[in-house]
Amino acid sequence: MQLIEIKELLLSHSKREGEQVVLVGSFKSIRSSGAIGFIAFSDSTALEPVQIVFKKENTPNFDEISKLPISSMILVKGVVRNTPEKKQPFEIQASKIVVLKEADPSYPLQKKAHGSEFLRENAHLRVRTNKFYVIMKIRSELANAFFEFFKNNDFLYVHAPLITSNDSEGAGESFEVISPNDPNYFGKKASLTVSGQFAAEAYAQGFKRVFTFGPTFRAEKSHTSKHLSEFWMIEPEVSLMDLDKLTILIEQCVKHAIYYLFDYAKPELEWCNENLEPGLIDKLNNVINNDFPRVEYREVIEILKKAVAEGVEFEVKDIHFGMDLKSEHERYICEKVFKRPVFVINYPKDVKAFYMKLNDDNQTVAATDLLAPGIGEICGGSQREDSYNKLLTRCLELDIDPEFNNLQWYLDLRKYGYYRSAGFGLGFERLLMYVTGCDNIRDAIPFPRFHGQLDF
Amino acid sequence: MQLIEIKELLLSHSKREGEQVVLVGSFKSIRSSGAIGFIAFSDSTALEPVQIVFKKENTPNFDEISKLPISSMILVKGVVRNTPEKKQPFEIQASKIVVLKEADPSYPLQKKAHGSEFLRENAHLRVRTNKFYVIMKIRSELANAFFEFFKNNDFLYVHAPLITSNDSEGAGESFEVISPNDPNYFGKKASLTVSGQFAAEAYAQGFKRVFTFGPTFRAEKSHTSKHLSEFWMIEPEVSLMDLDKLTILIEQCVKHAIYYLFDYAKPELEWCNENLEPGLIDKLNNVINNDFPRVEYREVIEILKKAVAEGVEFEVKDIHFGMDLKSEHERYICEKVFKRPVFVINYPKDVKAFYMKLNDDNQTVAATDLLAPGIGEICGGSQREDSYNKLLTRCLELDIDPEFNNLQWYLDLRKYGYYRSAGFGLGFERLLMYVTGCDNIRDAIPFPRFHGQLDF
Repeated sequence: MQLIEIKELLLSHSKREGEQVVLVGSFKSIRSSGAIGFIAFSDSTALEPVQIVFKKENTPNFDEISKLPISSMILVKGVVRNTPEKKQPFEIQASKIVVLKEADPSYPLQKKAHGSEFLRENAHLRVRTNKFYVIMKIRSELANAFFEFFKNNDFLYVHAPLITSNDSEGAGESFEVISPNDPNYFGKKASLTVSGQFAAEAYAQGFKRVFTFGPTFRAEKSHTSKHLSEFWMIEPEVSLMDLDKLTILIEQCVKHAIYYLFDYAKPELEWCNENLEPGLIDKLNNVINNDFPRVEYREVIEILKKAVAEGVEFEVKDIHFGMDLKSEHERYICEKVFKRPVFVINYPKDVKAFYMKLNDDNQTVAATDLLAPGIGEICGGSQREDSYNKLLTRCLELDIDPEFNNLQWYLDLRKYGYYRSAGFGLGFERLLMYVTGCDNIRDAIPFPRFHGQLDF
Repeated sequence: MQLIEIKELLLSHSKREGEQVVLVGSFKSIRSSGAIGFIAFSDSTALEPVQIVFKKENTPNFDEISKLPISSMILVKGVVRNTPEKKQPFEIQASKIVVLKEADPSYPLQKKAHGSEFLRENAHLRVRTNKFYVIMKIRSELANAFFEFFKNNDFLYVHAPLITSNDSEGAGESFEVISPNDPNYFGKKASLTVSGQFAAEAYAQGFKRVFTFGPTFRAEKSHTSKHLSEFWMIEPEVSLMDLDKLTILIEQCVKHAIYYLFDYAKPELEWCNENLEPGLIDKLNNVINNDFPRVEYREVIEILKKAVAEGVEFEVKDIHFGMDLKSEHERYICEKVFKRPVFVINYPKDVKAFYMKLNDDNQTVAATDLLAPGIGEICGGSQREDSYNKLLTRCLELDIDPEFNNLQWYLDLRKYGYYRSAGFGLGFERLLMYVTGCDNIRDAIPFPRFHGQLDF
């Protein structure tokens, strides 16, 4: 008699009627009358538990089992009984239950529902709840989705360095790294990276299509539901690419991720649709079934001005060229005007980073943000400035000293055949929130780090 | 006329005889007589360059092209000519060459060969050399190999936290993380992780099979060819698994990685075989074509004692139970005795980490190292101590205070159904060195970080 997993039983139970099986796992609830007991049994290989029925008449340790603390590990020997009339398609009628490891009764996640804050305080255990099982399963499949996309499209996976001396974001936003026994360990100031893009650009010059997937860091003090000190970013970069082709790449990439989840995490998406965000599946279908239009930033400004004139209530009503779009504006554009994801392109240079390609109008840069209904910005990217002189000029305008910030090598890339390059950055947890309906980024990563929080 | 990539041409050139094509890329060498010129052209999509032939008679800018600095970006319009009599299977006879971006003549990687140290000083450009093109291509495919293996075997991909308050390795080996503007940012001492294993163990309790793949850090001061301050680790963990099944998992995993490289990076492996390590392909075939034997540490000690008695010269000749095996001993065992990869199992507890499962003899732990010819240790793993009391006792014996080291949550896992768990850690760069023949770990990662080095 072979040990079998629930995952396997879910696929094959109808052919196994009456078959003897052995299962090993734990449980989230147990109840019994004097003669019969029921265990909501899970072996971690499927979301829904399987019901184990055990009877006093053939279970010598019936009383011991009945009182077993939640999360104890047991071995169950029993027979498969299909139950097409019930919600659960089958159950196991136990002939023997062995206690492999009795849990301590102090187990914090007893059967009642728990608040998010309590679960964060038990981040080492929360993956055993349905909510975190589902989110972390989708997280893993979302990563697989990107690896498949980039493999299918001949992208090289590049590991950008985490400890860096590039500090282009300015003081205060970066964490510093020190070796306690050797303060001069690296010979210069060391920070944790805020982006892998510069490394990706160097590698795109050697491999054409590359992507990074790794952690990035920000010493944020904000206590919002959207910020972490440590989060994962995907940063593809393609040499010879311009802004127009970049939007095509982003659209393909985002759609592929959602198609992949429908293929590999459908039950989990349905759980989210039912428990986290009603309408989630429709929202995702709306993404994959529509072309994403491109709209100029200048046009967005006109649309918003007209909206204000027509009485739409924004917090920020002063709409003008040069402004940074707020989330309310972004959502108005994609939710009310286009009713689907939309690329805004060619932003004013002063609201974007120094490395973006200056357009011929000398006012805008070849940047894009992808805005999606229900969230606003999903990701942003740009064609990069390829002129050494223009890039240097922009650095100096913004008081970024290439030598001091250890960026000379980055500028130098432009000297050696850097014709065009474009790429984008996608916050992995932000996208995970979007595809699950999870409303707090602290629940979208196994062990969240933020201001004041470093447990586990 | 469509832009075409060399990668595509390599697959289809024989059907394209006489076809007009357009290519965009750069070059590592150019030579010309008065009437005809040759460009070793590359568009970054293949290892070997393609020869472009251009003639004065139909190239108005012949003189400009002839003098173009290396690494300039050009567009070539021309005709495919198959050349079955030459080493290169085809060439392009240019009808037009457009300079898209003229490079600065200061380009550091001129045609001559460059030393490893010089290339490390130009880490932003070295990926354009054959050696680094090959190593980084294999690096990317090696990552793909693991993702495929874990996907096929139902492992959840888990991102372990990088910033941590767990400091089980003792002071000095860890980097500290601070926020310059807020020294008490996290409310406790923050370090960069040395391992994702503890997070993986927590998640294995919820998902059964999990793996991490992420960066880890060590404030090493050693300047050897095997140590970095920042490197990537793969750490699979499986609940319910014992040491015996763990060795099976490791063997499958390592073999899968090599099979995958033979499928997806054969030309690159052959390049390594020719240029970095003669015999590399045979070495890798020896790995996949053999079963890996298991040998007890105690037996290894007997074998080594016998070897010393028979006159084998080791640096460390005092062979006794309880010693930590040196690389020379490990290599003797796998290279001379077994002549293939071998698992050594059940090490003395005092040479292994506190969390490994104590065997019934009270002297050894259920640990294993995989030793392979040509390198010694490839990876190590263990069944974990599942008894709360034994784990706590071991911590106290080793002066590890669970509260002070923020490990109470890790011990607590044992209270709640932790029946068995086993896992291993694989240093990604070490394995990459093994499969490429690259002899310095600083060349096995895009931008190496080590004591005194933080450029780029």
